[in-house]
Amino acid sequence: MKIAILGGTGNIGKGLALRWAYEHEIIIGSREQSKAEQLAESYAHILRENATKTCNIRGVENDKAVAAADIVIVAVPYQALKSLVDSIYPCLTNQVIVSLVVPMEKQNSYLKYVPPDDGSAAVELKRLVPDTVGVVAAFHNLSARKLCNLENRLDYDVVVCGSDKEAKKKVMRLIEDINGVRPLDGGEIEDAAIIESLTPFLINLARRNNLGELGVKFV
Amino acid sequence: MKIAILGGTGNIGKGLALRWAYEHEIIIGSREQSKAEQLAESYAHILRENATKTCNIRGVENDKAVAAADIVIVAVPYQALKSLVDSIYPCLTNQVIVSLVVPMEKQNSYLKYVPPDDGSAAVELKRLVPDTVGVVAAFHNLSARKLCNLENRLDYDVVVCGSDKEAKKKVMRLIEDINGVRPLDGGEIEDAAIIESLTPFLINLARRNNLGELGVKFV
Repeated sequence: MKIAILGGTGNIGKGLALRWAYEHEIIIGSREQSKAEQLAESYAHILRENATKTCNIRGVENDKAVAAADIVIVAVPYQALKSLVDSIYPCLTNQVIVSLVVPMEKQNSYLKYVPPDDGSAAVELKRLVPDTVGVVAAFHNLSARKLCNLENRLDYDVVVCGSDKEAKKKVMRLIEDINGVRPLDGGEIEDAAIIESLTPFLINLARRNNLGELGVKFV
Repeated sequence: MKIAILGGTGNIGKGLALRWAYEHEIIIGSREQSKAEQLAESYAHILRENATKTCNIRGVENDKAVAAADIVIVAVPYQALKSLVDSIYPCLTNQVIVSLVVPMEKQNSYLKYVPPDDGSAAVELKRLVPDTVGVVAAFHNLSARKLCNLENRLDYDVVVCGSDKEAKKKVMRLIEDINGVRPLDGGEIEDAAIIESLTPFLINLARRNNLGELGVKFV
């Protein structure tokens, strides 16, 4: 698969790039070509240090990344979502777009989920892109830090929401390519609000209980 | 501790009774004395079959159970919450009351969290009881089936929400008495909505993915 990764909120984009780059073609997107190239090179460096296998990773501007991709991972802060979609809109045809976006705000010392009028960032994204694009929500509740450290054995679940069955299936298959991560069907795209709201919940929970970055496992 | 257990929605009340009855004094409450006695006897039977240790468990009417208790576990369906509180109100003094209540409705084949005007069942309960009662929300996301089977080794987290620090601490200590269950501080009572909403989410997730009853572990 050709996977564009746009933005690296909390380094989750980096983690996915590292975990997929031996098996898939990774295209790091950024607003600036030089930034994208620099990120791709730094990830490639980590991957070369980790194993002798070849990896396939490069960096280009966001719209070029999207134009070249089958799957587009959107890992930007919620505040950047609308302008990102504007900038890539002309390149959207029949890709699958995966929203990792979580609308949240700081309130006192903790984070609060602040869903947009559409009910969730995922549903808003679906409204913003052409109907031919499959929209899926996933990867909100993984520990980016543990994902980024390739020495870490993972044991996580990733809940995937989406109403385009084929798109959802593609994303669930990609998740299976990450060792120790189990994809779970979380229902329709309208069901994404709960997995988005789990992100601030997990961050707050870690903070309150002096734990490291938390992911989730359903047992 | 003297622990009253009122109602057994999805058998979570039964599971808690079984897991605590060797160490604590369990008082099963029901609207009818005979039903309470019958339940207590059936739990005692399971406990005697499981181990030779003595267990301390009896059944009485709800209000008498509450009057005798330090901790009151409220595991009734949301629809029964108001009338339950009415019936036990005269016996509420300075107990800690633990809400396991989840307001949810069936929608098509799935369950949907339907928070009351107060924002959550826990906050509603806090409004309904005297200020001298400590209100805590917990145990929404445990697998009742696995809790009830004493052969099962558990590995779960229980998130506890409450604004009365002493009450929350008492409940977290009680959770530590259940082997394999880790209490986590989930913040104020107003934070309970997310853990209540996780109940229908987990039930739907299990159904969609053909999994057994799910609990949760934060890793």
